[in-house]
Parts: sequence; C-alpha cells; structure tokens
Amino acid sequence: MFEKIALVGIGLIGSSLARVIRREHLARHIAIATRSPSTLKRAEELGLGDSYSTDLREAVRDADLVIVSVPVGSSAEVAEEIAPALKNGAILTDVGSTKASVIAQMQPFVPKGVHFIPGHPLAGTEKSGPDAGFAELFENRWCIFTPLPGTDPAALEKLSEFWRRCGSNIDTMDAEHHDMVLAIVSHLPHIIAYNIVGTADDLESVAKGEVIKYAASGFRDFTRLAASDPTMWRDVCLHNKDAILEMLARFSEDLASLQRAIRWGDGEKLFDLFTRTRGIRRSIIEAGQETAAPDFGRHGVEQGKGIGE
Amino acid sequence: MFEKIALVGIGLIGSSLARVIRREHLARHIAIATRSPSTLKRAEELGLGDSYSTDLREAVRDADLVIVSVPVGSSAEVAEEIAPALKNGAILTDVGSTKASVIAQMQPFVPKGVHFIPGHPLAGTEKSGPDAGFAELFENRWCIFTPLPGTDPAALEKLSEFWRRCGSNIDTMDAEHHDMVLAIVSHLPHIIAYNIVGTADDLESVAKGEVIKYAASGFRDFTRLAASDPTMWRDVCLHNKDAILEMLARFSEDLASLQRAIRWGDGEKLFDLFTRTRGIRRSIIEAGQETAAPDFGRHGVEQGKGIGE
Repeated sequence: MFEKIALVGIGLIGSSLARVIRREHLARHIAIATRSPSTLKRAEELGLGDSYSTDLREAVRDADLVIVSVPVGSSAEVAEEIAPALKNGAILTDVGSTKASVIAQMQPFVPKGVHFIPGHPLAGTEKSGPDAGFAELFENRWCIFTPLPGTDPAALEKLSEFWRRCGSNIDTMDAEHHDMVLAIVSHLPHIIAYNIVGTADDLESVAKGEVIKYAASGFRDFTRLAASDPTMWRDVCLHNKDAILEMLARFSEDLASLQRAIRWGDGEKLFDLFTRTRGIRRSIIEAGQETAAPDFGRHGVEQGKGIGE
Repeated sequence: MFEKIALVGIGLIGSSLARVIRREHLARHIAIATRSPSTLKRAEELGLGDSYSTDLREAVRDADLVIVSVPVGSSAEVAEEIAPALKNGAILTDVGSTKASVIAQMQPFVPKGVHFIPGHPLAGTEKSGPDAGFAELFENRWCIFTPLPGTDPAALEKLSEFWRRCGSNIDTMDAEHHDMVLAIVSHLPHIIAYNIVGTADDLESVAKGEVIKYAASGFRDFTRLAASDPTMWRDVCLHNKDAILEMLARFSEDLASLQRAIRWGDGEKLFDLFTRTRGIRRSIIEAGQETAAPDFGRHGVEQGKGIGE
C-alpha cells in the first residue's frame, strides 16, 4: 500500500501498528523512530521494523505515511522536529486521544504539500511499551478522523483504507466533538478509576492487604484502567481540560444526588438508576464492542482456558 | 458432609451453591426454596436440587445447614418465617454483602440451639438468577465469617470446612470491620460504576449511540458492575449506609483535589497519582485475585478463544 511508513513512537500503539503492517503487507519498508535508545533497542530485538533510528528526521525522510504515536503533550515538539524532512505529498497522521490540542500543536509546523490528517484509533490495553503491542489490537475497533477544512479527499480515503486493513471501522467528526465524546467514554472513566484506586490506597481503617485480598468483589475492575500509562494520561488530562472538567462536574453532581438518596434511604430512586444502567451494557454487547461472557470472561482466563490456549 | 442442606433463595449465589454441593457430594438432600414460583420452576427445570418449595418453612425443616441467599433487605422477613421450623443443632448462615444489618435483622428470630453464623462469600458476576450460577464461582475466592460472641467453635469449623470444599478461602472478622472493608472494595466501586453509566446516559451533547459505539475506550469496564442486580444493590446501599457514606465522602474529596489539579495544569500531581495506582493492580494479580492477561483477557474471549474452548 505504501512504499515506506515511518512510525514515530513505538509503544503499545506504534508496535501494534508495526505488527499489523507487516502481517498485512501494507508497506515495503517500516522505519521505526523513538528518542529513547532503550525502547529503540527493544523494538529492534523484537524485529518490528526494517530500519531503526533515534533521529526522527532520518526516519520520516522519504516516507509516504508518517504515524506519530507519542503522548499528546509531545506533539508540538515532534512536529517541529520532523517537519523539515517530510516528503512532498506524504500523509502525516497521529493516534492521540485528544484532537483539538494535537491539531493546535502540530498544524503550524506542517509544510505545504503534506497531508496532515489527525486520527485516533480507539484501541488499547492497560499495558504499554513495544512488548505490549499485538497485530489484532485494532480489530473491530473504531478509528476516528478529525480532518481539517480543505483536506484532500484522496489522502483521507487512502488513510481510511490503511486503517480498514488494520481491522478498524472508520468515523469522521470535528475535533471539538471528538474531544467531548472521548471525555465521557474514555477520559472520565480513566480519571475515576485512578481516583478510586487512590482513595483505597489512602485508607487507614482498612489495611492495604485487605483491599488487595478482597479486590475480586468489584474493586479490581477499576484497577485495570488505573494501571494505564501515567505519561499518556497526564497529557490527556492536561490537553482535554475543558471537556474533562465539564464531564467531571456532571459526574460529581449526579454522585451528590445518589449520595443523598443513600443518606435518606430513597430505595426507589436507587432501584431506578440501577435498572436503567443495565440496558446500556446490553447495547454495547449487541454493538460488538464488549464480550457477553460473565465477568469479562475472566473466569475462563483464570482457569487457564484463556488467550493462546 | 450434611444430611440435608436447605437453600433459601436460588439466584446466582444459591444456584452456584446447589451446583457445587452436588458436584462435591456435600449433602444427601438439597432442598430449594424461593417465594417466586417462576424462579422455583426454573431451578427445578435445571435440576438444581432434590426438593422444591415456595414454602420456606417446609424447606428448612430437618435441614442441618440452612443457607439464606436473598437480597439483604429481606433478611428479617425470611428469618422470622423460617425460625419456627429450624432444627435444634442446625447451622443457619447467609451470604449477604452487609453483615451488621443482617445480624440485626436475623438474630432476634434465631431459636436457642440453632447456630447462627453470618457469612459472606466474595464471589459473583454481573449476572443474576438460577441460570447464572456455576459450580466454580467460589474457587479461590474469600468467604468471610463475622461470628457473634459465644459462637460454637465446632459449628464454625464445620461451616468453614463446607466453604473450603466449595473452593473458598476462609477469613473471620467482626461485622463492623467487614462492612467498612466491603464499602471500599465492593460497594463504592458498584455505586461509582452505576453513577458514571447514569451520567453518560443523561448527556445531550453526546448521542447515546456514540457512547455505545466507542465504549471500548474505557467506559465499558464500568458497565459490567453497573449491570448487577438492582434489588441486591439497592438493599446494599440502604443497609450499609454509614460505611458507604464515609467512603463516598473520601472519594469525592479526592476527586475534587484531582479536578483542581486538572484545572490548574498540575501535571506532576497527576503523574504521581497515576503512577502510584499501577502498583496496586500488580499486587492483586500477585495475590491470585485477578488475571494478568491484558484487557482482562477479553481479547481472547472476543476472538472465540474464551470459556469452554
């Protein structure tokens, strides 16, 4: 599909891309670039690409497609660094979880003749680094583009086809709407998960050993999101501030109302909410975005019948 | 182990008990009782017991072990109903998620000569009803007893042995401590999950279809707990009010502080919290209370490599 694809950043997303590009023969040459010599070494040991460099400019030179997969807070710096080496006619995209901020950071550096198309594959796990990636990560997941006015339709279609061949479904929307949607479906859940795990960690009346021992009764569900990459999530919080603060305000307002129902013994109100929320999970399962197996199918995994068996 | 075990209530927990009692030959006779004729019929169709009755008294007569598995708000009513029929020397226990309230509700009705030992197996899934149970539910999970002063050690040991043969590990603590521990490891996570799913359901700027479509980016993790049985969880909220309100207050305080860090761009504070929480998950995995597979091992399940394969 492409002569040369450059992957700038080779963590969970970058390394999953490298694997699926190889499997699907989407490029003749995969150039891998990261500033961290130890991460680059690991990527090389894993055989993820065809060339490896800590010099981002060298990696993107002559590339037809450049995919930036770095924490969103590093977007400006990376764009500034690679801009002079970008080939005329190349497609430049990213995978960041916030879009308005990434556009603001990268756009000013994009040379004329380069097609900058901001993107966000909604895929990931709580693991990070080049070892965490796998070729199936994007299968049946959505990839959202937030194209800028004047985007070349041919370039957008080519990038869409690339992501479809990685297994994804494609959507497009404007960056502001993306950031609002993601604030509720992704950013708020992560922040809440981090917060509750922090609250439990701080208790003095309940020993930390007890929290760990009895985690299967609900708490452990939150620890997965709260084990996600700290740098990535710090940057998301700092770069989608307005939408996140809006969602946090709504969440806290609702929680105060729920708390009041508990204090005053309003069983009917509790029952109504607890019934309403059941249907949403059903819809997500029907949409093919969640497993129907009880307990996420964990039980099978724990009994040794899981992945790879 | 027992001549006759009576299971009062035959939902997820009761029906899982029926299955493991049969598999492990823990009783010569399993008597199943529930007030709901349709649930009873389903239990009979599933062949879960040896006798079936909507008359709780009839079921518990002559039983050596009576296990009450009903929403905690029904404890007093059930205890009052069955008390006259309980055999001298029988062990009476429950599986309720709150213990001080269950003791207050049941204890007054327990006849002299009956060993009342409140219990709580920390096991479950988001499913409910007799079809949802499975014999392995209690494997490697904790069962907590909150024995009253003067409890007969032989009866406690016999009940402990029963639960060990169901696959559980045993702990004992006082009821107040149990309720505080469970408020953080189980009740608060469920309430938060219900709340965030409710918040998402109420948004007008983001379509419900979008929440469902993009749920895999974090939100879906919360929908599992928020799909739990509404009656059970209403009762938990009403019957462990003080401990839950205490944990909610701490959670909200911490969230306000996190929100402030986001508003003022305090990246260091965010990074510190997001790093600290990673370790807790590691400890839970090491304690054998969680799977180490990425994404709960969901990916394997979704790819058809899950349970039963």
